[in-house]
Amino acid sequence: MLKKLCLTLVVLICGLIAVLPLGAAGHGEGQKKDDKVAIILASFGTTVPSAIESIVNIQKKIQAAFPGVPVKITFTSNIIRSVWRERQADAQKWLDQGVPEEILYVKNIVYTFGELLEAGYRDIIVQPTHIFFMEEAHDLTQYVNAMRSIQTIKDKWKPFGKIALGRPALGTVGPRYDYREDFKKALMTLTDDVELARKEKAALVYMGHGNDHWPSGIYAEAEKMMREMYPQVTTYIGCVEGSPGIDDVVESLTQAKSKSKPRKVVLKPFMIVAGDHALNDMAGDEEGSWKSVLTAKKYQVIPVMQGLGSNDRFAKIFVDHIRDAAKDAGIPLQ
Amino acid sequence: MLKKLCLTLVVLICGLIAVLPLGAAGHGEGQKKDDKVAIILASFGTTVPSAIESIVNIQKKIQAAFPGVPVKITFTSNIIRSVWRERQADAQKWLDQGVPEEILYVKNIVYTFGELLEAGYRDIIVQPTHIFFMEEAHDLTQYVNAMRSIQTIKDKWKPFGKIALGRPALGTVGPRYDYREDFKKALMTLTDDVELARKEKAALVYMGHGNDHWPSGIYAEAEKMMREMYPQVTTYIGCVEGSPGIDDVVESLTQAKSKSKPRKVVLKPFMIVAGDHALNDMAGDEEGSWKSVLTAKKYQVIPVMQGLGSNDRFAKIFVDHIRDAAKDAGIPLQ
Amino acid sequence: MLKKLCLTLVVLICGLIAVLPLGAAGHGEGQKKDDKVAIILASFGTTVPSAIESIVNIQKKIQAAFPGVPVKITFTSNIIRSVWRERQADAQKWLDQGVPEEILYVKNIVYTFGELLEAGYRDIIVQPTHIFFMEEAHDLTQYVNAMRSIQTIKDKWKPFGKIALGRPALGTVGPRYDYREDFKKALMTLTDDVELARKEKAALVYMGHGNDHWPSGIYAEAEKMMREMYPQVTTYIGCVEGSPGIDDVVESLTQAKSKSKPRKVVLKPFMIVAGDHALNDMAGDEEGSWKSVLTAKKYQVIPVMQGLGSNDRFAKIFVDHIRDAAKDAGIPLQ
Amino acid sequence: MLKKLCLTLVVLICGLIAVLPLGAAGHGEGQKKDDKVAIILASFGTTVPSAIESIVNIQKKIQAAFPGVPVKITFTSNIIRSVWRERQADAQKWLDQGVPEEILYVKNIVYTFGELLEAGYRDIIVQPTHIFFMEEAHDLTQYVNAMRSIQTIKDKWKPFGKIALGRPALGTVGPRYDYREDFKKALMTLTDDVELARKEKAALVYMGHGNDHWPSGIYAEAEKMMREMYPQVTTYIGCVEGSPGIDDVVESLTQAKSKSKPRKVVLKPFMIVAGDHALNDMAGDEEGSWKSVLTAKKYQVIPVMQGLGSNDRFAKIFVDHIRDAAKDAGIPLQ
Repeated sequence: MLKKLCLTLVVLICGLIAVLPLGAAGHGEGQKKDDKVAIILASFGTTVPSAIESIVNIQKKIQAAFPGVPVKITFTSNIIRSVWRERQADAQKWLDQGVPEEILYVKNIVYTFGELLEAGYRDIIVQPTHIFFMEEAHDLTQYVNAMRSIQTIKDKWKPFGKIALGRPALGTVGPRYDYREDFKKALMTLTDDVELARKEKAALVYMGHGNDHWPSGIYAEAEKMMREMYPQVTTYIGCVEGSPGIDDVVESLTQAKSKSKPRKVVLKPFMIVAGDHALNDMAGDEEGSWKSVLTAKKYQVIPVMQGLGSNDRFAKIFVDHIRDAAKDAGIPLQ
Repeated sequence: MLKKLCLTLVVLICGLIAVLPLGAAGHGEGQKKDDKVAIILASFGTTVPSAIESIVNIQKKIQAAFPGVPVKITFTSNIIRSVWRERQADAQKWLDQGVPEEILYVKNIVYTFGELLEAGYRDIIVQPTHIFFMEEAHDLTQYVNAMRSIQTIKDKWKPFGKIALGRPALGTVGPRYDYREDFKKALMTLTDDVELARKEKAALVYMGHGNDHWPSGIYAEAEKMMREMYPQVTTYIGCVEGSPGIDDVVESLTQAKSKSKPRKVVLKPFMIVAGDHALNDMAGDEEGSWKSVLTAKKYQVIPVMQGLGSNDRFAKIFVDHIRDAAKDAGIPLQ
Repeated sequence: MLKKLCLTLVVLICGLIAVLPLGAAGHGEGQKKDDKVAIILASFGTTVPSAIESIVNIQKKIQAAFPGVPVKITFTSNIIRSVWRERQADAQKWLDQGVPEEILYVKNIVYTFGELLEAGYRDIIVQPTHIFFMEEAHDLTQYVNAMRSIQTIKDKWKPFGKIALGRPALGTVGPRYDYREDFKKALMTLTDDVELARKEKAALVYMGHGNDHWPSGIYAEAEKMMREMYPQVTTYIGCVEGSPGIDDVVESLTQAKSKSKPRKVVLKPFMIVAGDHALNDMAGDEEGSWKSVLTAKKYQVIPVMQGLGSNDRFAKIFVDHIRDAAKDAGIPLQ
Repeated sequence: MLKKLCLTLVVLICGLIAVLPLGAAGHGEGQKKDDKVAIILASFGTTVPSAIESIVNIQKKIQAAFPGVPVKITFTSNIIRSVWRERQADAQKWLDQGVPEEILYVKNIVYTFGELLEAGYRDIIVQPTHIFFMEEAHDLTQYVNAMRSIQTIKDKWKPFGKIALGRPALGTVGPRYDYREDFKKALMTLTDDVELARKEKAALVYMGHGNDHWPSGIYAEAEKMMREMYPQVTTYIGCVEGSPGIDDVVESLTQAKSKSKPRKVVLKPFMIVAGDHALNDMAGDEEGSWKSVLTAKKYQVIPVMQGLGSNDRFAKIFVDHIRDAAKDAGIPLQ
């Protein structure tokens, strides 16, 4: 009896969901089913509730820029999604903490493509929240190319129309967009970090993610460019994985000329979110965290627990990259 | 207030769904989340409630053969899915008619791949319910190849492991499986139809689907083989689309030698389901339906409103084809 | 010493060849190195010297239609090319028999793509001499798609620009071109065959190639259409491989109504070339050849040893298909 | 008359070539036509005759390691091949300078695949002479994947069997081979360079190629590793394109601590060949060359005009990478 009632409710509510605009509440207003274009915001993801805001902030900026277009969040990390999947068993607890439903029930990108297809969206813009073209962006490209490759005998049954792929925050390889220009634009949004370090008479140390299996000089290049753009503070960028690591940062700090030798360090993630790496690897109290290492070297550490996605000016970079990708692919966006 | 209650319910129930085995109730028993292999039963689909049984019957046979493996139904026709999508607004009405939830909320195959991926299934066997390799099977192959094409930098992030594609009911092109053998096996399941025609002293006329844009001699070859296998009745196979059509069937009936000239016709779909084509094009009362055309030619018509999928022996062909495809792809199935 | 002289000669002559327009003598006139478009005429191939003329005739018609564009012949059959490769050891013998150098040294299509690329041709139209979309055309499509798939980081290093694929003589599957229209146009070029059969009061029997692994109704459909277009003679079409075979043809001939029952048969290949199948399977003296079978049935057989490619009107079909494919792909052809 | 004689000669000699082992004289000995495995050595290429030796040296090392396997050189640069194509008009001049025929008539990789296919080689190992995975290696992967993608209806007509792709000299991205290990092995072959610099009491400055459109930290990482491995000299690595450039090298040299401040510089290409970049950008006399820049800064410059490919120990790295790639792909190599 109860089971039947429950089933009826499921059916009713699912029916309700079915006629609602795609996806979670809150950002769906104004979307109509006959809108053809949709945006997929592909993030590596995070398991840290407080870090979600950085991703949602990017989503909001994109939604504000393209009001009628659904902006679906997907997490590309299988491990992170599996954590959320387990949490779904205790859903209310997470919703009460302010976790958006869209995140709690976040899906892989194949699912999201299928969901959009089902709802009649055929022109898709995939925008990663990645920093640059490395492992994650490579893998995402594979998914996008797979969806692009589906050719039907009759054109009208082709599942998707145009699929655009936006470039990461700091740009990508190849000649279409000069990555140095993209670097410049991205680094120009970091004035608040610089200003904080200047006031504190501190060095500015960023923790990037990096990659053990894909060397990229982007952190060194970004560091060099930061120093040129902002001579008022000395910026250091290291990585959790790969090179340069915290040891390199410490050595560089040590080698700074005596008069400009900083005693304080502003420590901030050079990542979209202040997630697990920021909480533990960067600002954790355990031995080996960057904070611990720097403190042991007698630096006064000022950790800033905020992902780049929470920086509105940085978040808007993705709006520009969506616009560029749509234009290049011939997808009309108002 | 009510909205909040409603939301809470959604969350509770969705959470409930999330921990249930994949998909609709009824065939999920015995499935565990850590099963790695899943089967997608890819059907063109039907909008006719009474026709669904033929597809569900195939699903049941497959489920019985592979008890621990989820068997997800997908409809490949965009138009048919859009009809069901509209019906979701009036869900209870359709559920009351016995439409399974899995059909009412049926999804495209990209979605189904994403859903299985989300639930941890990595080895996938796609089994079409198509009759032979023509437009539908070609297009399905494109989807399967797209999913196969996704290569990640690290093997562990590759979304899918092995993806097998079963061959249609009457086989496929190419040397791996002799399509004439497949024809023979399939036609051997049609003894009940032959027996009915024999008892009625009727000709046996099948209505195949056919294709305006993809000539295939399969209907002529199947007709010829039927006559050899079952000399007791004369079998005719025509198509709704493409060649041979009802006119060719009528002409052949007319040319039959006088002594064996039939006055009765058993009329049955040579399709998986007795759906829209069976209801209207075959047995409808309007002018132009096969029944009307044959009646006008003074034949007594005995329509049989049953799809091939409802023939248990025919339905089991798909079990064999799944087994073959899994073996060829190296996917273990008990 | 002699070796050195020989080497010098090779070098000189190779250098000479290198500055000549691409490929064999005779049809290269008027081609300039900065022509961007080239045509690859992809034939299954033949080992029979007298049969080559049918392919060369098609090449000539194409060359005449597009004077400045190189038209390279490739043979897709590995076995046939390997026969020619062995014959290269005895080159003069074959050249003396009138075998064109381009055929004696015929290459696979990958090589031909590479050769054109080397010579600066980037927009390529591949025109098969196939009859319809079956195994050969499927496989050729794979090669073409492979060449299309090469994407470089910089657009300027992309090896090929646009690659068009013309449809076979009798058309192809899919809605872009109605294959029945293509059939009609092709069969309209067969008036000479019909006229010969009419004069001889003979049936017109064509031997198609067919395929054991890819059923296609095209021979039955073509036969039916021939009878409608040319009621003055009765046309029969059988296949060497697959269905319908010579037995079916004989049975049909036997069942012809007595007054129109033919005693004579005009026997002709329904293939591009009158090659090995025509020489042996069709008109050979051994038991089992179509001629022998028909003769044994008391038919007077008039074999016509001429491939469809030698029929100028048929050959010009490929010109039309090249023009269509180029237009669809956006490749400019004068 | 003369023309006819000439043609006859062409035919004779071409026939002769056709029965010779694949490709140019000199390294073909011991190859038999029924060898199934072949190696393609894919180099960006060079137009400088004296630089060719570095590539040929690598070829020789590979040939010595796999005596029965043909090793075909291809140049991937369209521009460089077009230079050689023009030079073919004046062939003897270049042959007299010691340019191997295989280089003078060098072809693109599509052609080379086609040539090997024609000669019956089906398992192919492509070994780039690239330094690391960047633009060139990405593009090469596209060609390899294209060849891999060709699937025929019948397995026996599939053009290629297994196609392996070796990794560049210093390794590649991804987890299969740790690039740091590859770096280490490669840098361990540079002892002669280090020894020269040590004797000369000079800094060791390498000129890498770099890439304006694909940032990679490999030069910085290699520089750091060199300093750790060889503390006896200070190594600097800059790039012609991209970052770090000669200005960065000069600045680093300037910042060196006074007591170890070098007054001499050993200048050597960190490239496979000492080609155009080495001749002009590195050691040219014009303003702006690295030699000129360093000389202007009062450094005594000792240029070494030798590519890494001429370093036998470095050249042998490619033998190892071929062996690894063949093993990973399941291609048997003795």
